[in-house]
Amino acid sequence: MPSMMGRLYIALLHYPVLDREGRVITSAVTNADIHDIARSARTYGVRRFFIVTPIAEQAQLVRKIVGHWTRGAGGSLNPTRREALEAVEVAGTLEEVIEAISREESGPVNTVATGARLKDSCVSHGHLREIMGEDSGAYLFVFGTGWGLAGEVIENSRYRLEPVNGPGPYNHLSVRSAVAITLDRLFGRTG
Amino acid sequence: MPSMMGRLYIALLHYPVLDREGRVITSAVTNADIHDIARSARTYGVRRFFIVTPIAEQAQLVRKIVGHWTRGAGGSLNPTRREALEAVEVAGTLEEVIEAISREESGPVNTVATGARLKDSCVSHGHLREIMGEDSGAYLFVFGTGWGLAGEVIENSRYRLEPVNGPGPYNHLSVRSAVAITLDRLFGRTG
Repeated sequence: MPSMMGRLYIALLHYPVLDREGRVITSAVTNADIHDIARSARTYGVRRFFIVTPIAEQAQLVRKIVGHWTRGAGGSLNPTRREALEAVEVAGTLEEVIEAISREESGPVNTVATGARLKDSCVSHGHLREIMGEDSGAYLFVFGTGWGLAGEVIENSRYRLEPVNGPGPYNHLSVRSAVAITLDRLFGRTG
Repeated sequence: MPSMMGRLYIALLHYPVLDREGRVITSAVTNADIHDIARSARTYGVRRFFIVTPIAEQAQLVRKIVGHWTRGAGGSLNPTRREALEAVEVAGTLEEVIEAISREESGPVNTVATGARLKDSCVSHGHLREIMGEDSGAYLFVFGTGWGLAGEVIENSRYRLEPVNGPGPYNHLSVRSAVAITLDRLFGRTG
């Protein structure tokens, strides 16, 4: 396995994200996001998958779901799901995520903002793969729920990743699909 | 857009598929599958996405969900979701899907079986992309729910697609993620 494998992190933000009209909101945690992204993360060697919500009840809900599959009845029933969900952590803010990673990694945490509508100063998947191949630092990919990351998150990120596009103009993948494709473009074997 | 764009079809099978112990079962339709795969299909130029279930009540449930987002209140609320779900159709069997495609396409329907555990005589994503680039026929990608397609479906397919793998041995993506990655490997722009 490539040496980068331990340096990959994902954060799924429920705040600050945008709604349909571009207002900053807090979105609700979705069960399918937890499971699908945890499984994609495990497949592509992501060290930890942070679910970020400032709402205590939502954080508690995530911990309950994850606990069911890692320590509870679900874990013995479905070991592969347990293995995926063991990498899930809950955080209140993106800053907390960066602090948590900083405590176990040397050097800066390179944040990578993602989004279907990013346009300016984007790095391509191929270029980012090259950058990461020559660097031993930690990389945190930040995904937004709702209608995408708020401007402040994008502006404060080290990199902005080019959007995942198909051959046509339609670009409304679920965040679950966008995470899967992004990880595969960067770290998957391609035939 | 490439000329192949009109020739792509997807079928998501709920029968015959396998359970954890390898028995052939009928799985239940999942709401997230409908939405996520419809959005991925629309993004990558899939002409139609067939949801295959032999259970009449399940077929009716899918029609109700799709109707809500295409003709009901959901369609005006969320036009991009409507656009995705307009390509969804329900069928009772894989044979019905092939017949439906045959009625509007000339030549054979090339079925492509997919699965995380396919091993023998698989075509790579790159090779299949080449094959499709030189052929004007219809291609139907068949995905299984549960623990994957039953043996008979794999055996009767024209092609078997190599599994989507990450850098390590873990291979338990959701079918939603597997569809997204497969379409991106075959038809996405790569950076």
